[in-house]
Amino acid sequence: MRAIVLLSGGLDSATCLALARREGFECHALTFDYGQRHKAEIECAMRIAEQVGAASHTVYSLDVGPFSGSSLTTDEGVPKDNDHPGEGDIPSTYVPARNLVFLSIATAYAETLDAGDVFIGVNAVDYSGYPDCRPDFVDAFARAATLATRRGTQDASPLTVRTPLLRMSKAEIVRAGLAAGVDFVLTTSCYDPQDGAACGHCDACVLRRRGFEAAGVADPTRYA
Amino acid sequence: MRAIVLLSGGLDSATCLALARREGFECHALTFDYGQRHKAEIECAMRIAEQVGAASHTVYSLDVGPFSGSSLTTDEGVPKDNDHPGEGDIPSTYVPARNLVFLSIATAYAETLDAGDVFIGVNAVDYSGYPDCRPDFVDAFARAATLATRRGTQDASPLTVRTPLLRMSKAEIVRAGLAAGVDFVLTTSCYDPQDGAACGHCDACVLRRRGFEAAGVADPTRYA
Repeated sequence: MRAIVLLSGGLDSATCLALARREGFECHALTFDYGQRHKAEIECAMRIAEQVGAASHTVYSLDVGPFSGSSLTTDEGVPKDNDHPGEGDIPSTYVPARNLVFLSIATAYAETLDAGDVFIGVNAVDYSGYPDCRPDFVDAFARAATLATRRGTQDASPLTVRTPLLRMSKAEIVRAGLAAGVDFVLTTSCYDPQDGAACGHCDACVLRRRGFEAAGVADPTRYA
Repeated sequence: MRAIVLLSGGLDSATCLALARREGFECHALTFDYGQRHKAEIECAMRIAEQVGAASHTVYSLDVGPFSGSSLTTDEGVPKDNDHPGEGDIPSTYVPARNLVFLSIATAYAETLDAGDVFIGVNAVDYSGYPDCRPDFVDAFARAATLATRRGTQDASPLTVRTPLLRMSKAEIVRAGLAAGVDFVLTTSCYDPQDGAACGHCDACVLRRRGFEAAGVADPTRYA
């Protein structure tokens, strides 16, 4: 069983990779370099792919210039100490259609490697309000992806998009990752790291800290 | 009304752009530079965008290295004098999930420009047997794309993927393009051009030649 696993270098995708490995998949990790200001993510992804035991790891460069506008890739500041990430409006850190583009490229890569499964660590509970993290989107995408490829024309099984974290709280993700052997020291979540340390105040830091607290696990993150 | 129009530089996409213009859309053309051996396409796309009157034209560089394997981007020869393009197996010129990836990036671009429509010149009649040219795929994609973006969460109209050429024969496309003012001299279809001249024998050349013949229109293509 061969799978493509989207790996950002954060806590969620590291756990997703470890769960895919635990299910017995030969995992080919795929990380996007899209000019994100948190480039440290990419180095984390490389270390995690090795620690968790991915069969291969590809870093794919994607130019989001023509569809930028997200505070993750521009000089606009990221929001800090947002008390309610996940509620209300889509935050400024949203990159237009990011998961759609990422999953499409993962689908092309899956077709090339004849992998039947694509894993993505999206989460519909403790999430940041991005539209492309919702279950409806993932289901619709899997259908489109199957029809877009040889799988849709031949007598082959459809492409399966797996989202093992979809219904987990952040605390459950922390516990599942630890149980599957993830070394969270290697992960980074911060949107705005300073000198290798997490800012502690962006949406991603707030969600991550709460996750460790709620799981009753010591947070290994180095904060600025 | 604002639209993104995928523009390859070929006969179909040029006609698609002209039809979108005729419907009154402000057209933002999007061309992919993905290392295709028929690079002349990109220069054609630039000239067509200007001739037909696109509001803007973006050439987007996409690395298909990790999912290559198509004879369009490798040193493998393209098939010649195939008597039955469109029937039987998927040809070697197929780039894995290409339209899925192209449409995903067009969707991100549409969201950035607040365009509600994406035009793509796919055709289910005189086509080359690619899975991602089929109507089922286009419908499934439109649903996934709407759910992937702000349009799926707010009180906005869904993203519309328009395929004005879907049910046309090649001859009908030639006639529609001429009627909408396309100068077909500016277009190129050949997968394997030599010194700026079309080879006359690849699937794309065969379909194009037959189209002009069936339309009863002089073929302006310069063949090697």
